[in-house]
Amino acid sequence: MFKVYGDIRSGNCYKIKLLMSLLEIDHQWIPVDILAAETHTEEFEKMNPNTRIPVLDLGNGNYLAESNAILNFLAEKSRLLPDDHYQLALVLQWQFFEQYSHEPYIATARFINKYLGLPKEREAEYHAKQEGGHKALAVMEQQLKQTPFLIGDSISIADISLYAYTHVAHEGGFDLGDYISIQRWIVAIEAQSNYIGMNSQETAD
Amino acid sequence: MFKVYGDIRSGNCYKIKLLMSLLEIDHQWIPVDILAAETHTEEFEKMNPNTRIPVLDLGNGNYLAESNAILNFLAEKSRLLPDDHYQLALVLQWQFFEQYSHEPYIATARFINKYLGLPKEREAEYHAKQEGGHKALAVMEQQLKQTPFLIGDSISIADISLYAYTHVAHEGGFDLGDYISIQRWIVAIEAQSNYIGMNSQETAD
Repeated sequence: MFKVYGDIRSGNCYKIKLLMSLLEIDHQWIPVDILAAETHTEEFEKMNPNTRIPVLDLGNGNYLAESNAILNFLAEKSRLLPDDHYQLALVLQWQFFEQYSHEPYIATARFINKYLGLPKEREAEYHAKQEGGHKALAVMEQQLKQTPFLIGDSISIADISLYAYTHVAHEGGFDLGDYISIQRWIVAIEAQSNYIGMNSQETAD
Repeated sequence: MFKVYGDIRSGNCYKIKLLMSLLEIDHQWIPVDILAAETHTEEFEKMNPNTRIPVLDLGNGNYLAESNAILNFLAEKSRLLPDDHYQLALVLQWQFFEQYSHEPYIATARFINKYLGLPKEREAEYHAKQEGGHKALAVMEQQLKQTPFLIGDSISIADISLYAYTHVAHEGGFDLGDYISIQRWIVAIEAQSNYIGMNSQETAD
């Protein structure tokens, strides 16, 4: 059975939880507290020398890090990955966009605000994150004006990757009020069968 | 024929140039100058609303952005991608590592130093990038102590992704002297047939 090492408050970890719920993949969730530096133990570094969560333990001595790599691994041949070669590349395009142009703004602003309580010494950084975050949201909005999901008519792991921090962007100070298509897309994702929320009780097992 | 919009001085663009050379993929290179804001024209934004290079023009009305997504698209069924499902996921793991934990430190420090001339107002940021960059190099060194290339015995697009900014890391102030395995790996990549350097004349066509 797969084991997932993660902190469900982290959007990167929640992506895995949501995918596993949508695809009904049996697994054990091992809570790891980043704020308590639990990714810096010798044992953890053996699984991921980059000391980040989530980490997937395949149960055969192999480990996989990086949330979006884990999503691709778990979603293979499922309805959450397109068959078409170009569309598969677009899934990756959106996931790399997420890690480089979205997460460092929206997730970091949320972390500073929600988990650190917006301390004075990080206020300037918090405000500096707003412009980049809104640029990323505008890129998503432009696509979602044209197609129901990021890759077209069907939900894919690209949507899971971007949903994770977008649906809690308000916790980082981002008002989604003007992003009509993103709002409609959030509703469509939350209507999927087996959808599980970020703060669901079941996520703590 | 494929068209690539890029600036060869950018490691993200050079990845595509190197892959196309190794696999002998015919293409046209369209130079785009980021410093002159050429990614912010209306025409460019139609290809990539995120206003970044490189962009691959497939020639059929379709475009693909994000260097690592382009590498995966072009390398399909080539010797630069493993067949094994877990190893394929490891390629993605290293590529997401590159975009999140390596490029924002090493490439940004290089950009501030080499292209902006280390201006006073960005000196603090430049120095702050050193710790994260060395952490990323240490993660690579640990893997390359165990295997010739990042995924094992054979070169893959994971190596191309990480090579792009690592081999010019000194331009961002990173001394590779202590990273013996990374140095050996750089030599092995540069010994590949059809290898092309970042500053090669041929890259300007």
